[in-house]
Amino acid sequence: MSTEYDFSVPRLGEAKIDSPITYSTVHGDLIANYVRDDENVLYDIEVAPGSTAKEYTQSQILEMAGPRQKIFFSPTHVHAGIMTCGGLCPGLNDVIRAVTRCLWYRYGVRRISGIRYGYQGLLPENQIPTMELNPEEVDDIHKIGGTVLGSSRGGGERTEEIVDTIERLNLNMLFTIGGDGTQRGALAIAEEIERRGLKIAVIGVPKTIDNDLAFIQRSFGFETAVAEATHAVASAHTEAHSAINGIGLVRLMGRNSGFIAAHTAVASHDANFVLVPEVPFDLDGPKGFLEALKARIERRQHAVVIVAEGAGQEHLQVAAEKDASGNTKLGDIGIYLKDRITSYFKSIGMQANLKYIDPSYIIRSAVAEPTDSLYCSRLGNNAVHAAMAGKTRIVISQVNNYFVHIPIKMTVSERNLIDPESSLWRDVIEATHQPLVMKNE
Amino acid sequence: MSTEYDFSVPRLGEAKIDSPITYSTVHGDLIANYVRDDENVLYDIEVAPGSTAKEYTQSQILEMAGPRQKIFFSPTHVHAGIMTCGGLCPGLNDVIRAVTRCLWYRYGVRRISGIRYGYQGLLPENQIPTMELNPEEVDDIHKIGGTVLGSSRGGGERTEEIVDTIERLNLNMLFTIGGDGTQRGALAIAEEIERRGLKIAVIGVPKTIDNDLAFIQRSFGFETAVAEATHAVASAHTEAHSAINGIGLVRLMGRNSGFIAAHTAVASHDANFVLVPEVPFDLDGPKGFLEALKARIERRQHAVVIVAEGAGQEHLQVAAEKDASGNTKLGDIGIYLKDRITSYFKSIGMQANLKYIDPSYIIRSAVAEPTDSLYCSRLGNNAVHAAMAGKTRIVISQVNNYFVHIPIKMTVSERNLIDPESSLWRDVIEATHQPLVMKNE
Amino acid sequence: MSTEYDFSVPRLGEAKIDSPITYSTVHGDLIANYVRDDENVLYDIEVAPGSTAKEYTQSQILEMAGPRQKIFFSPTHVHAGIMTCGGLCPGLNDVIRAVTRCLWYRYGVRRISGIRYGYQGLLPENQIPTMELNPEEVDDIHKIGGTVLGSSRGGGERTEEIVDTIERLNLNMLFTIGGDGTQRGALAIAEEIERRGLKIAVIGVPKTIDNDLAFIQRSFGFETAVAEATHAVASAHTEAHSAINGIGLVRLMGRNSGFIAAHTAVASHDANFVLVPEVPFDLDGPKGFLEALKARIERRQHAVVIVAEGAGQEHLQVAAEKDASGNTKLGDIGIYLKDRITSYFKSIGMQANLKYIDPSYIIRSAVAEPTDSLYCSRLGNNAVHAAMAGKTRIVISQVNNYFVHIPIKMTVSERNLIDPESSLWRDVIEATHQPLVMKNE
Amino acid sequence: MSTEYDFSVPRLGEAKIDSPITYSTVHGDLIANYVRDDENVLYDIEVAPGSTAKEYTQSQILEMAGPRQKIFFSPTHVHAGIMTCGGLCPGLNDVIRAVTRCLWYRYGVRRISGIRYGYQGLLPENQIPTMELNPEEVDDIHKIGGTVLGSSRGGGERTEEIVDTIERLNLNMLFTIGGDGTQRGALAIAEEIERRGLKIAVIGVPKTIDNDLAFIQRSFGFETAVAEATHAVASAHTEAHSAINGIGLVRLMGRNSGFIAAHTAVASHDANFVLVPEVPFDLDGPKGFLEALKARIERRQHAVVIVAEGAGQEHLQVAAEKDASGNTKLGDIGIYLKDRITSYFKSIGMQANLKYIDPSYIIRSAVAEPTDSLYCSRLGNNAVHAAMAGKTRIVISQVNNYFVHIPIKMTVSERNLIDPESSLWRDVIEATHQPLVMKNE
Repeated sequence: MSTEYDFSVPRLGEAKIDSPITYSTVHGDLIANYVRDDENVLYDIEVAPGSTAKEYTQSQILEMAGPRQKIFFSPTHVHAGIMTCGGLCPGLNDVIRAVTRCLWYRYGVRRISGIRYGYQGLLPENQIPTMELNPEEVDDIHKIGGTVLGSSRGGGERTEEIVDTIERLNLNMLFTIGGDGTQRGALAIAEEIERRGLKIAVIGVPKTIDNDLAFIQRSFGFETAVAEATHAVASAHTEAHSAINGIGLVRLMGRNSGFIAAHTAVASHDANFVLVPEVPFDLDGPKGFLEALKARIERRQHAVVIVAEGAGQEHLQVAAEKDASGNTKLGDIGIYLKDRITSYFKSIGMQANLKYIDPSYIIRSAVAEPTDSLYCSRLGNNAVHAAMAGKTRIVISQVNNYFVHIPIKMTVSERNLIDPESSLWRDVIEATHQPLVMKNE
Repeated sequence: MSTEYDFSVPRLGEAKIDSPITYSTVHGDLIANYVRDDENVLYDIEVAPGSTAKEYTQSQILEMAGPRQKIFFSPTHVHAGIMTCGGLCPGLNDVIRAVTRCLWYRYGVRRISGIRYGYQGLLPENQIPTMELNPEEVDDIHKIGGTVLGSSRGGGERTEEIVDTIERLNLNMLFTIGGDGTQRGALAIAEEIERRGLKIAVIGVPKTIDNDLAFIQRSFGFETAVAEATHAVASAHTEAHSAINGIGLVRLMGRNSGFIAAHTAVASHDANFVLVPEVPFDLDGPKGFLEALKARIERRQHAVVIVAEGAGQEHLQVAAEKDASGNTKLGDIGIYLKDRITSYFKSIGMQANLKYIDPSYIIRSAVAEPTDSLYCSRLGNNAVHAAMAGKTRIVISQVNNYFVHIPIKMTVSERNLIDPESSLWRDVIEATHQPLVMKNE
Repeated sequence: MSTEYDFSVPRLGEAKIDSPITYSTVHGDLIANYVRDDENVLYDIEVAPGSTAKEYTQSQILEMAGPRQKIFFSPTHVHAGIMTCGGLCPGLNDVIRAVTRCLWYRYGVRRISGIRYGYQGLLPENQIPTMELNPEEVDDIHKIGGTVLGSSRGGGERTEEIVDTIERLNLNMLFTIGGDGTQRGALAIAEEIERRGLKIAVIGVPKTIDNDLAFIQRSFGFETAVAEATHAVASAHTEAHSAINGIGLVRLMGRNSGFIAAHTAVASHDANFVLVPEVPFDLDGPKGFLEALKARIERRQHAVVIVAEGAGQEHLQVAAEKDASGNTKLGDIGIYLKDRITSYFKSIGMQANLKYIDPSYIIRSAVAEPTDSLYCSRLGNNAVHAAMAGKTRIVISQVNNYFVHIPIKMTVSERNLIDPESSLWRDVIEATHQPLVMKNE
Repeated sequence: MSTEYDFSVPRLGEAKIDSPITYSTVHGDLIANYVRDDENVLYDIEVAPGSTAKEYTQSQILEMAGPRQKIFFSPTHVHAGIMTCGGLCPGLNDVIRAVTRCLWYRYGVRRISGIRYGYQGLLPENQIPTMELNPEEVDDIHKIGGTVLGSSRGGGERTEEIVDTIERLNLNMLFTIGGDGTQRGALAIAEEIERRGLKIAVIGVPKTIDNDLAFIQRSFGFETAVAEATHAVASAHTEAHSAINGIGLVRLMGRNSGFIAAHTAVASHDANFVLVPEVPFDLDGPKGFLEALKARIERRQHAVVIVAEGAGQEHLQVAAEKDASGNTKLGDIGIYLKDRITSYFKSIGMQANLKYIDPSYIIRSAVAEPTDSLYCSRLGNNAVHAAMAGKTRIVISQVNNYFVHIPIKMTVSERNLIDPESSLWRDVIEATHQPLVMKNE
């Protein structure tokens, strides 16, 4: 609770230019909806038992996002770049659309370039032309999944070459829509930019379908991912229910944290076991998962199991490879569990019909649900407000329901995990009735 | 900021019984996931500019919801009643399901009665038998819309007769799932219960599809309502786009506050005007809505208009009637606008093809989306925890993302409204580009 | 059975040009998939009881649609026009897309003009420019509802002016996607074209969301309309089920025939009464609808009623007005029924809670379901094959599951109606258990 | 065209009992909607070029399904059994529901037993109790996927034991909802029943999600499967479009025939290649699939490939194993293609990003779309009419849009396949622009 964070927001320089209100040329009256730099919100809001005051220091307060009355960049001189990196996530196009429209309509910016295929689009050898963005171009893109800019993994570590390209393109603001690795790359780029004495704002929109970025209450696309995942779980339930001793096994995303698995379990009402990276489990032994699964089958003749891809990695023998984004390659716990369950029931001479479902790309390529679509619009607008005001090296985040500026170095410093003592996990247990502990000691 | 609230939580008496952990009969190890009565969370979390500490008093902190280690009621003696009141709302069955299952599985309660058709089911003359609830009965009810208990308006004002019935049924806890009027009724009932010296917990689960209850961050069913409403807006957009000077006009729910209209506008990306109760507008005159609509049509040849049912009531001549729930009857702004727009364009000799869509009951009768389904489960669980611990006269709410106990008298004391200076309304303006102000002075 | 039809197909002249196979430039081997003009299919395929042979004459056989080995038009000289008329219908964009792509890819046609807003786009005073169509332009249009060309009612009766415009545009084929009125207009245009000695093919793609065009087994968009309508009925059912003596009343499209209402009733499994134009009913009296509704309510405490917009018109007092498409304006049976049911139950002192749902434009503006999307593609392809082969004054239809050419004059000669003695209506009765007859004598 | 079929319909004996009209007890007037045994429809309806009459013999006409005025069984003595076998298919519960309701409401049958888990439920050693069915029990089952009766593979070959159980249960009609193997089993059972001189009707409702049963125009669940499959293809398209040289590969059901793959390709508009069992292809060589895929990638930078599970089996080395239903086990062409494509692009030094999607059980466990739900209701009703009239050893089918009786021995005699010279395959080629032939000679 007394953790010292550093939430101070870097900026390129003093903002001195009056913000234009380009959308109200006809009707001049103005409702004051600017945000001041000293409007803040508390980060940690729990009150210690017995305490009578909530002290805080600069380390505990977050700068609110939103349009500033004074901006740093003259809109007519702005050339903005937008980029999407890493795996697909519902809502990417919504963010691109919002950034483009807010730049264009609210600030009057007319030079907006989409960088193609993530950092690959900034590497000199690829020679990939940028894509001109304007409101007409982005008008309907929220109706399709994926990203119209294309995406790719890796490349972000080649900082100097990338800044060379950014200079060549004459960008003065770069919006990086991506995850952990992307934002690390963006931080290095922003630092190199500073080293070169350039005035280029680097603003991240954090993307993690797994909802595992720190200091970020909710990642965009997450609710859509859960909604899609519930379809897969419904299928597993149907299959399990229609067979003799049917078992539906569903593998969902979640490399380091099991939020999709946990939310899907509660939302679908159909899961009997949820296995996540944060809660280790034994397979064998009297308190292990297989025994518990057998007990469930004996009691109800069917079962649905959700497993997050990062769960139970200790059971797998995997070489420590990494993919192009620098993520450790995981062993496939889904296939492993499928085999172990099948052989276990064979070994005890009990019939069991397992159906394995891996919805994989169906989830991440979905069109954003309205709740995510709204959220993406607001993230994109606030990213533009931040860049125009000369903020840099931050991501736009929602914390305690406020849109705020979080320094990139904070958000990549740790991961968001399910706390097994939290009310979320408690409600997962209520929903599944799985044993609290599936370890033999 | 210095508002004095009273968030203190009434209770029936001291909780002395050990909470059973009925779901872990096989696996005894226990992760401590109880919540203490003195765990609190701050209500107002904005930090005043220039300030260096956040003072608070009891009036500013909220009691966290969740299971207590000591409970008030002995599960074997509990007879719980569950009731749904007022208009339909997505998620009602999810709440009923969660309350039933949490009582049954976590606490071992075996007498759970569904009160049929809201307060009507407690009025002596109706003689409506209750419905026995158990996990099997509620297993699949979240897959259908509406409420399996039935609902109705009114009746809650007959406090004494209702408490007579409650005594006759020998209930010792009553879960009231309903809105403003329902909770006022529940408060009066709880006070009468206290007057009679009875030990009956009254716990509300606040229901308002419009998201307009105070001290409640998000009402269940709201996200589903917005998702459904986006379909209607998409239709309006399609119609408007396919006709010469097409205008799509959609009427959405929102008697006192325009949250559904506002969220739908941002989420759908298709609306050009959003009219809500909180932001008055003129129809005529150079800065009025009709002139702005004409300008839009001239510029883009089509337009989509969303109007919340409670918007622009000042333009209508309505007798001050009330419905059975005590809500003032509103004039139909949708039909009125439809007529005014049509006659306006006729009067200026400009072709316009208006299509009017009123999705009405299609929205409120929808099955809950996964995000609401999860939320309802968690509300229901926390309602049970509160009742078992002997809390009373409260509703379960989510504030700053924590589940908390809010005294009923606080939640019925005021309404939640859109603040036209908020970031939400700012993002509505970004999304629609409607004039900030549509008043002639 | 011995009806004399005239299914002979007009053509502009002898087809002498070899059909190009533009899609197989790389791989030359060719599977023969051309259709010959003398490949036919029977229209009436029922066998008379006791008979031993099925005689037929030219009047009973239909010419199969499909690509001909010899075509009439040289692709490099073709300028094709595509037009959508009348009310929206799911699948319009799918047809436009298929026509454009088949012309472009299979035949190598490079001049394709979208006529805007139906016949309005061909009237001299409107001066509406055409829209250039090519595969890129139409690539994603099937993902949105409505018609990218725009539509309108009326104008088709100004034959000579329209043919003047067609000549001025130098079109040599015109695809008219529209209903009864549109095809009548198209027929007159084609006749005027012939009178002037021009070689311009006029090919219709019949559109009727109500499925009421004769000699057409299934109209595109119909399945989607039914799917959308089932949502409205599900809402009505939810509302009815959740109220004391709840009645859900849903008004669906169907001016002359009740196919949408009938199919929706069987598909949804939730309707208890279906009122269609083809089956007259009394409201009052011992065998009337109101008495039957009351009996249902007494038996089951809720009811769902579907009414097609053209049903029970004999109960309404309506002036014989016509709209711009020449359709007789109907009285609103939905509102009328709503009022009559409400006052009836009031008159007999029985509580009833009626909820009225009119999904209106939500149904017709929907994106085509896959089954319709496939069907539209195939209609569009066959329309192009017919035009290229020099056929004219026909519509593309599916009969007995074969795609065929039907002369326009046949398809506008009568309407498709529900036969109350058919197996469809029998299955409606099975699904609803409504009385076979609701007439007092 | 002159094929000699044997469509004659077996029956148990003369139908002498008047059919009850149980649903019209209040309103006595009757529209005649019975079907006579000598009402027939032609099977082959194409007219030979140059011919002037359509001759037919008994071998070419089909008996229409529907209620007979005289029935064979006395409803009060009927004990009906319903069974679902084999893999899941959308609509199973709709059929169960229709059979149950039609027996109960139309005929007044009160003893209806659901056989659990297919033929396993009739094997003596399993001792699985039957499930009592009535309208209340089945009221909402169409809202969930799968089968409430459960299903399993195999067991149907143990004819004598099964007939023993049928006798013990005292069934006099058995409805077998299942595929090829199920109906073969049913035929053997019916023959054994005849051998024993029993009067037990055996009526099949043919189930094949692949649409590959002969003499059956459309199998129930097929349209739903296609609709679900289009979601998977949309995901593949999104992934392919968002990556550098992205390739989306989707594996769909279709062991012997590629109807799902073909319909999905046309309906989705997103596929560039469709590989089906009926059209062999080479992988390598100048005209092979891999070369064609490369050409597509070079031209458009992305591609979507659909492969039916039974396609290209000649490329796989598989032992000729069979599963419990007697189906030959197939090699996994999806995984094989994935590997071959990846290694091919690596071998030519061309970047390619392949994403593999196997929606598997998500498709077959879906809830029936309205169009299938309606179809299932009608199949179920007609199955009951047939059984009550004493028909046996038939399946209910739709041919040329008429519901008809087809002898089981005809429907298991051959398979329904895609004809590469058909208009369907032609429209697949139009939709994908894949080479007509991908063989090197």
